[in-house]
Amino acid sequence: MTRRLIVIGGDAAGMSAASQARRLIGGEDLEILVFERGRFTSYAACGIPYWIAGMVDERDDLIARAPETFRDRQDIDVRIRHEVVAIDPGQRTVTVRDLATDEQASHRYDDLLIATGATPVRPPIDGVDLPGVFGVQTLEDGHQVLDALEHREPRRAVVIGGGYIGLEMAEAMTIRGLDVTLVDRLPQPMNTIDPDLGAQIAEAMRGMGMTLHLETDVLAIDADGDGHVRAVETAAGTFDADLVVLGTGTRPLTDLAEAAEIPVGSAGGIVTDAQQRTPVDGVWAAGDCAQTHHRISGQPVAIALGTIANKQGRIAGLNLGGVAARFPGVLGTAVTKVCEVEIARTGLSEDGARSAGFDPVTAVVEGSTRAHYYPGARPITVKVIAERDSGRLLGAQIVGKEGAAKRIDVFATALWNEMTVEEMINLDLAYAPPFSPVWDPVLIAARQGANAVADAG
Amino acid sequence: MTRRLIVIGGDAAGMSAASQARRLIGGEDLEILVFERGRFTSYAACGIPYWIAGMVDERDDLIARAPETFRDRQDIDVRIRHEVVAIDPGQRTVTVRDLATDEQASHRYDDLLIATGATPVRPPIDGVDLPGVFGVQTLEDGHQVLDALEHREPRRAVVIGGGYIGLEMAEAMTIRGLDVTLVDRLPQPMNTIDPDLGAQIAEAMRGMGMTLHLETDVLAIDADGDGHVRAVETAAGTFDADLVVLGTGTRPLTDLAEAAEIPVGSAGGIVTDAQQRTPVDGVWAAGDCAQTHHRISGQPVAIALGTIANKQGRIAGLNLGGVAARFPGVLGTAVTKVCEVEIARTGLSEDGARSAGFDPVTAVVEGSTRAHYYPGARPITVKVIAERDSGRLLGAQIVGKEGAAKRIDVFATALWNEMTVEEMINLDLAYAPPFSPVWDPVLIAARQGANAVADAG
Repeated sequence: MTRRLIVIGGDAAGMSAASQARRLIGGEDLEILVFERGRFTSYAACGIPYWIAGMVDERDDLIARAPETFRDRQDIDVRIRHEVVAIDPGQRTVTVRDLATDEQASHRYDDLLIATGATPVRPPIDGVDLPGVFGVQTLEDGHQVLDALEHREPRRAVVIGGGYIGLEMAEAMTIRGLDVTLVDRLPQPMNTIDPDLGAQIAEAMRGMGMTLHLETDVLAIDADGDGHVRAVETAAGTFDADLVVLGTGTRPLTDLAEAAEIPVGSAGGIVTDAQQRTPVDGVWAAGDCAQTHHRISGQPVAIALGTIANKQGRIAGLNLGGVAARFPGVLGTAVTKVCEVEIARTGLSEDGARSAGFDPVTAVVEGSTRAHYYPGARPITVKVIAERDSGRLLGAQIVGKEGAAKRIDVFATALWNEMTVEEMINLDLAYAPPFSPVWDPVLIAARQGANAVADAG
Repeated sequence: MTRRLIVIGGDAAGMSAASQARRLIGGEDLEILVFERGRFTSYAACGIPYWIAGMVDERDDLIARAPETFRDRQDIDVRIRHEVVAIDPGQRTVTVRDLATDEQASHRYDDLLIATGATPVRPPIDGVDLPGVFGVQTLEDGHQVLDALEHREPRRAVVIGGGYIGLEMAEAMTIRGLDVTLVDRLPQPMNTIDPDLGAQIAEAMRGMGMTLHLETDVLAIDADGDGHVRAVETAAGTFDADLVVLGTGTRPLTDLAEAAEIPVGSAGGIVTDAQQRTPVDGVWAAGDCAQTHHRISGQPVAIALGTIANKQGRIAGLNLGGVAARFPGVLGTAVTKVCEVEIARTGLSEDGARSAGFDPVTAVVEGSTRAHYYPGARPITVKVIAERDSGRLLGAQIVGKEGAAKRIDVFATALWNEMTVEEMINLDLAYAPPFSPVWDPVLIAARQGANAVADAG
């Protein structure tokens, strides 16, 4: 009998796994059935703010592969607008509702991959579900925001929360010509960046004309006479809002798994081993709905990011296809930009290092993205966090202008290999005046980090 | 008695060593005397083509620190226009000619650091020393080319050799409005790049309006009636030239060392250990004049590059200052650009891998520097070279447009740590649409490299 793999969720992790498994096993031996409750597959959720900003021409530019393509070219049966409403791991079945007809059916599986993704956190405040309040996670969300921009002609946007999506949407709304107010309960936007570098981010956002209210709790969201969002009440006053964006992060979508008693871990994601198997026989999980381990802290983490989802999907697909493969964990590498300011991080922050039981020393250096005399040289600030006793690199952060942020990848690769900052100093990185000063800022930071380790020793 | 360190050569390696030693030992215990035969110290030789192109405003922008600054702030006695003409390791003396007065004097040393740098290779052809034929290595060379541009108003430049300096000077001459012809005996410019990627470089140069004559030997350089360069005779014809640039690489300046029987190795550079000590008691060497070892091939190499000179100088200075430190070798990482085309490499090329005794497999992928839908996404071609049996990364090359080349640093860091291409696939590199596709081209190349290893296995 043909084995059947059922995948719940047709985006990065789910479709990577399905494609990878199909490359290894043909349709006569493995039937692959994907249920996606939305209308789209394999889309770039990370691109949505840029689509809303008008920097991406067409929605379809964000779609890597349509359901028909999977069906026609890869023999993967993708059913959009089909929502899985229950999993029965004992019977090895899922119950699926066809959202077009509202009919339900039961489908047997041999293997089940849960790739349900994540959903924007909705803070528990009155009015959070009003029309005009948007989370930004799916293409449908993007359509709704664009509809609102077109039909309601909003003038004022309030963004609640200064995470990645909050920042990118604040930029998008500014580009769209709205007055933007960002409200965040934390002392700075991007709380994954240490305060010494974080200050530059708030400054840049204010420089773009945004109003920031930091260390400010949101109390409620108010409606107008039509029941549409009208204002955001905060501890610092009430701000008129024609449109509200939630930028308070995401949480793994684990409701289905929890109802089926598939274990969810301390980081809020479905628990898997390195092969992406859950503890429940025949059930796998990958992507934003799953948790993984942080290679430096050793702790479980749930990070909603397309790169991780793609990689975990690939690993799940390899194992499902009979090729043993292991996902080796993450470093928490991330990058974004607000207008001209690029922001990147990897590994542990200074506080994160302490929480994980390390005794960190740090160094912060200011440099230049190119030789100082070369046209287009831009400022870059680099922070390294290293272990006091061993000098082992624990993390790094970068804030700067064009050409700054992607340098974080050198730190990510060094972290992956457990290098010390001392060892990093002699790394043979590329140098020419259009690309770097003779001592790349990464290496200057490593050198200062090594000095800090030596001074502390 | 105060120890005396004499340094020959006041550029990257020499001044890094002097500065580092001084940070560790004060002037009462260590006298530092630097002889530099030119007029300048610590200048960015790599910036000279951009100065000539007019992209750098002032010559002094290329000077990191002037002789007076070393004297006043660091108690380092720098004597410019002083040429060391002989070393006597037995007596521990150097003979120095003051180029202003032509007087000679002998100076005793306790430690001697040779940091004489490299010099452009002058091919053994008639006319190579004619006025109007320029190597480009020192600020004086830069002044001479700029003088020629200003006073002779040349219209046609011939560049002999398509190495880094050849390419950068071809670009500079094009920017200056000259008709540029590049003549190279090899089948492509940048012979450190494999032919499959190298073809893009020649194409880009032709696109800029340059004329390329490849696989073409230069036979002679002809003079006009005034004894100034007039034309370059080649196997493909004679090309008029008002100005000729030598881009045929550099060789370590080892004449002084050889005369003093300080060993020069098979790569043409002064032999040192990892602490930058030569086999001769009290004599050290660092920078372009020294050879080092290639971490992947294990073979001795002499690479003229400011980064290596600075790092080796620092290592020599640490050891001279009493802090044990070792230079761990190089990967041959390099980067440059010709107009819009960025070019980078690290580790071994495909042929280089074979020469070093490896059995390589390769993969070449074409990708995009940003998410394909994000404005400003540019093409990037990445090649990986891996060992057939182990999958160990041996080298990588990148040719592309803006934002492509500096990604080579991830490969350099992975190479340094002896990663396999398989291990690289899951590296947690930074992703956001303005910075990278969801699978960074580096990771796609690693994945294809791993597939090539698997297919070959």
